[in-house]
Amino acid sequence: MEVLILGGAGMVGQKLLKKIIEKKQINGKSVSKIKLFDIVKAQYPENTEIEIETFTGDISKPETSKNLVASKPEIIFHLAAIVSGQAEEEFDLGWDINAKGSWGLFEAIRSLGDNYLPRLVFTSSIAVFGAPFPEKIPDNFFTTPLTSYGAQKAVSELLLADYSRKGMIDGISIRLPTICVRPGKPNLAASGFFSGIIREPLNGLEARLPVNTSVRHWYASPRSAAGFLMHAAELDTSKLNHRINLSMPGLSATIEDQIDALRRVAGEDTVKLIKHDIDPKIDKIVSGWARDLDTQRALDLGFRAETNFDEIINVYIEDDLKK
Amino acid sequence: MEVLILGGAGMVGQKLLKKIIEKKQINGKSVSKIKLFDIVKAQYPENTEIEIETFTGDISKPETSKNLVASKPEIIFHLAAIVSGQAEEEFDLGWDINAKGSWGLFEAIRSLGDNYLPRLVFTSSIAVFGAPFPEKIPDNFFTTPLTSYGAQKAVSELLLADYSRKGMIDGISIRLPTICVRPGKPNLAASGFFSGIIREPLNGLEARLPVNTSVRHWYASPRSAAGFLMHAAELDTSKLNHRINLSMPGLSATIEDQIDALRRVAGEDTVKLIKHDIDPKIDKIVSGWARDLDTQRALDLGFRAETNFDEIINVYIEDDLKK
Repeated sequence: MEVLILGGAGMVGQKLLKKIIEKKQINGKSVSKIKLFDIVKAQYPENTEIEIETFTGDISKPETSKNLVASKPEIIFHLAAIVSGQAEEEFDLGWDINAKGSWGLFEAIRSLGDNYLPRLVFTSSIAVFGAPFPEKIPDNFFTTPLTSYGAQKAVSELLLADYSRKGMIDGISIRLPTICVRPGKPNLAASGFFSGIIREPLNGLEARLPVNTSVRHWYASPRSAAGFLMHAAELDTSKLNHRINLSMPGLSATIEDQIDALRRVAGEDTVKLIKHDIDPKIDKIVSGWARDLDTQRALDLGFRAETNFDEIINVYIEDDLKK
Repeated sequence: MEVLILGGAGMVGQKLLKKIIEKKQINGKSVSKIKLFDIVKAQYPENTEIEIETFTGDISKPETSKNLVASKPEIIFHLAAIVSGQAEEEFDLGWDINAKGSWGLFEAIRSLGDNYLPRLVFTSSIAVFGAPFPEKIPDNFFTTPLTSYGAQKAVSELLLADYSRKGMIDGISIRLPTICVRPGKPNLAASGFFSGIIREPLNGLEARLPVNTSVRHWYASPRSAAGFLMHAAELDTSKLNHRINLSMPGLSATIEDQIDALRRVAGEDTVKLIKHDIDPKIDKIVSGWARDLDTQRALDLGFRAETNFDEIINVYIEDDLKK
């Protein structure tokens, strides 16, 4: 069985790749080949039992998707996206990649015909929700995105739902929480500090905390993200009753919860590396983000995430620290 | 001030045209010209004080919208759409007209630049909702359309909201109830009987009732629809707080309520022209439709519809019967 990962060079794409290589099969069917697509060449481990091939290109061009699906991969993970900040700055680029790119992929699958009906797992985002919302956002809450990125994800969700309802694709969209702790270097994303205040101290480095410790946010680990994707690939989608867009489970925690967990896991000296220095601009951005979700549907369908922040920190230590 | 109506040949477009000609102004600004666009040439009354020009074309082609907005109309009503049944049968046509057509219009406005910021009133539909839903669908309920038409309307809503949030258009979408009583001849739409069982008897003709009298549905008159559009054109959109997609008020009534109202307005002999003959196919389709909505937001913003079915029948008698 062939598997295609769009966005295979990204952090979550890499975690998913690793997981597939370890499991060697999805839903009992052995994976013989993985195609990794991204705008840059994706890395992959050598000497795997599974054949791996990389592709680069521009997903907003219809022929890119046509070429990628021509070999009829049975499972497609669509993680490719321009990130939130860039999509907000570059309006055309965001809509081209994040909405027209998804649409082009769905059309490429449909136009192959010949009863080709792949499982397509699309990574959406809680950015489809826009404030004001209830403290705990329910599964049936409306999508009023306050970023172009969120609107592009919501449009892609609607498109995938209609192509799936019409029997052209076997699709499912999963709305990921903020992924924490992200491995690697600090980045410029407004959300970067959520990972930074754990990752940097654990690596002996100082980290800036630009918001109040009372700020509450919605998390899952990279390991959980890869788990969501695999579970979505294996799920009986007839259980979804055409409601294929699912908020994934996560952990609602305050910055104070994060710091307390870090103290328990790594001690007070590590915590002291967090330097509290409010940035009003970031504080304002973050105040509009989702803090907690009721994800009963996803839980009932067997999706699982961490239930306390100590776990999230320990996943980072086990999977990524000093690797 | 110039006003553009896309979908000007349709029933609601014609009611809106008549209302603008009568009022001669929108929001205190006098209307000097109305451009009527549709796939066929729209009718219009002669000898009006307002200059009227008609255009025909294919809204799915980007140049169509570019040509229409080149004169920078201050107010644009976008009612052009492939109807639900046809959009379900002809997948490409529905997505081309109802989603890419809207997108092309929004892009045409944006690409003019030069601080051009028209008020754009888009007619959406309660088809953005898909069963199961609560008996009374709240304003913050999620959109899970079960038709391509509903998905296309929901996608257009999200696009217009993002173009509006970014200050490229001054947009508002209004989700119309089922319009009843539709004037004119019976048509083949599954919803046709909702109007037919009132209109045909009032014209001395028999009408088939293909569902149970307990069926509940959501209505507003053509006069209310034109009123919604005018109110949306005049509204202070800063009150919408970026949530520009609004379910319009309507009347929730059963078929039995309809028949009782017809009896009060026109007598038992007229009611006897309704022939009850269940069509299981139509009964099944209708069972998935919205029955009642909580439209507090729209009511708070001053939108108004009929509050009993006698009113809806009397509007038909006053505005359309024997004209």
